[in-house]
Amino acid sequence: MITGFTYCTPTKLYFGKGCVKDLPAVMGKYGKNVLLTYGGGSVKKTGLYDKVRELLKDFNVIELPGIEPNPKYDPSVVTGAKLCKEHGIDVILAVGGGSVLDCSKAISVCAKYDGEGWDLISGKVKAKEALPVVDIITLAATGSEYDSGCVISCTAINDKRGYVDDILFPAASFLDPEYTYSVNKWQTACGTADAMNHVLEQFFASPCSEFNDGLMISALRSLMTNVKTALERPDDYAARSELMYVCTLACNGILSNGAGSSGWPMHSIEHALSAYFDITHGAGLAIITPRWMKEILCDRTAERFVTLGRSLFGFGGGLTDREIAEKVIDAFYGFFESIGIPMHLEPLGVKAEKIEEMADHILANDDTSRDWMYAPLDKAALIRILTASM
Amino acid sequence: MITGFTYCTPTKLYFGKGCVKDLPAVMGKYGKNVLLTYGGGSVKKTGLYDKVRELLKDFNVIELPGIEPNPKYDPSVVTGAKLCKEHGIDVILAVGGGSVLDCSKAISVCAKYDGEGWDLISGKVKAKEALPVVDIITLAATGSEYDSGCVISCTAINDKRGYVDDILFPAASFLDPEYTYSVNKWQTACGTADAMNHVLEQFFASPCSEFNDGLMISALRSLMTNVKTALERPDDYAARSELMYVCTLACNGILSNGAGSSGWPMHSIEHALSAYFDITHGAGLAIITPRWMKEILCDRTAERFVTLGRSLFGFGGGLTDREIAEKVIDAFYGFFESIGIPMHLEPLGVKAEKIEEMADHILANDDTSRDWMYAPLDKAALIRILTASM
Repeated sequence: MITGFTYCTPTKLYFGKGCVKDLPAVMGKYGKNVLLTYGGGSVKKTGLYDKVRELLKDFNVIELPGIEPNPKYDPSVVTGAKLCKEHGIDVILAVGGGSVLDCSKAISVCAKYDGEGWDLISGKVKAKEALPVVDIITLAATGSEYDSGCVISCTAINDKRGYVDDILFPAASFLDPEYTYSVNKWQTACGTADAMNHVLEQFFASPCSEFNDGLMISALRSLMTNVKTALERPDDYAARSELMYVCTLACNGILSNGAGSSGWPMHSIEHALSAYFDITHGAGLAIITPRWMKEILCDRTAERFVTLGRSLFGFGGGLTDREIAEKVIDAFYGFFESIGIPMHLEPLGVKAEKIEEMADHILANDDTSRDWMYAPLDKAALIRILTASM
Repeated sequence: MITGFTYCTPTKLYFGKGCVKDLPAVMGKYGKNVLLTYGGGSVKKTGLYDKVRELLKDFNVIELPGIEPNPKYDPSVVTGAKLCKEHGIDVILAVGGGSVLDCSKAISVCAKYDGEGWDLISGKVKAKEALPVVDIITLAATGSEYDSGCVISCTAINDKRGYVDDILFPAASFLDPEYTYSVNKWQTACGTADAMNHVLEQFFASPCSEFNDGLMISALRSLMTNVKTALERPDDYAARSELMYVCTLACNGILSNGAGSSGWPMHSIEHALSAYFDITHGAGLAIITPRWMKEILCDRTAERFVTLGRSLFGFGGGLTDREIAEKVIDAFYGFFESIGIPMHLEPLGVKAEKIEEMADHILANDDTSRDWMYAPLDKAALIRILTASM
């Protein structure tokens, strides 16, 4: 069954080897004054920075380098918005992964707002205007290149916010899988885990449809197969291109239009973890996934596990639904471990004494306990999930 | 492997029970003067016409009723374009199936062009401007509500043209599955066959990817399961909603981005058939499908059949690839027959003596014989397919 929904993604995708050749024509539609944003400098090592500067030789380019993972409102967003105002920026070009793009999306609205930018990001004030954002993605992971959201941390108040508004869709996204060849094993694994979790957050919902289930299972299968190849052969175009494209669609909604909403509980938990301990998002999600699954498994939810078990893993035979579900949970745990993600939070620096505080933080800031969630989580459940993940 | 592509669908989808409540707000964005287009009057019988007139009570509405199946350039497109110019139309509202919408798309460009409209449709002149088109779809079939194409017949020259341009994307599409409850068995079956063929045209291509294959097989499975339910219980929301949504995505490209192009050979053949004999598009496609499959089956193409056979039909066991392929062809033949489509062209009024002329017409007007096609068809092959379909 497909229930009511609205859907529109105005972003234009440019995909494939050499696609950035079209960058000047696309940027030129918006103006001459460009804010170029990027991260810690890997784009300089790979040569992409030089290529972009060459492509933008007829534009006035102001730079905002050094955008951090889990991008921060202050200094990155604040500084970027100030640069846009000072230099009359027409369009932002984000070159990098999801963090650089998310930061640029936040800049795009703050640059057009005279008040305190965090009021937009935290949902207190609705943004009316935004600068256009174009991106060149160098990491297959968040899907920010094809969605209307960004995740921004405000360290002053230990907060990490998902901010979603149609105004945040990028104008155009350039996706050349060759730019992901240099992504190391850790980031390749964490990026894939992030996208897998995006699919799973959508999969555990009700009502659902056989069609959407098929799309999501195809996405999971492609991610799980191709990450193995990419870890073995980082320059395998076939594997890198599937990872890149599936990650792009995984957070967009197109895989689950008209299905019920799960409420994205694993993201709520992970956002608290990385707000408190700045851990890698995809790793946090991978660690939480099997513990969250174990917490919500019951007679009502078993059908979702059984569908995954039969279609994705080929489980069946003489097993009961509950046995299939438990095998599915073990299979995800084993899979994440097999791609090199340590399946415990403590080695990533998370401290057990903060668990209760994080649980309170999640309940206060997110919807995890609401009745409309696919599987509401109260404080005790959040503590169980976090404790089991340590 | 995902090869190079660009993709953008700016159309906004409004889906689900009661979604047309948003119609006035959407139409209001474009202006007050509306050309309302519809077909043979079924929208009056179902009450949708009255509902739409009520929703548009604050607009100036000019009507173009009576748009025919396989819509004609003259009189429908010509008359519609004239009405738009005379009445300063701001936006076109198409209410009906793919024929009404296709005609409206053609009107939207001809209304903004001072020369001969057929020059735009036949590709001689590129359209620079179009009126916005909004639609309310009452038949799950063509997917025109989410694509940038239209198919228009010019009876004076026995031509039926597929015209594709980004300018033709609808601004918004309203999809309420309840409006398809009254679609009769024949149109339900033919609409589903049309969408199945859209998927198969994309599936038979090279290179391909496991991810895209999964999307397309999920679409085929949903169509084949849900049409059976809808034929038994016309007011089954779950079945009608899946049919409607899958048909919407089936012609849009999202199911096969980055796959090679097949060249849509079955559509080329069917367009000749309905240009000469005005048969129902979906029926023509269903009849051609297994004959086309039989014609192109060879060692190189067997893999596509085997993937379909294993994933969609569960064929395998001790069978050879060739045996699986032949079972797949039989399975599609049997499926179309089982939903009530007569699997021969003669009962639909097609005359065998026109086969050679149609083959020449296809070769002259379409790409079926080009080297870049997935499986190029020469005149002899076209004659074999048409003869076997009689």
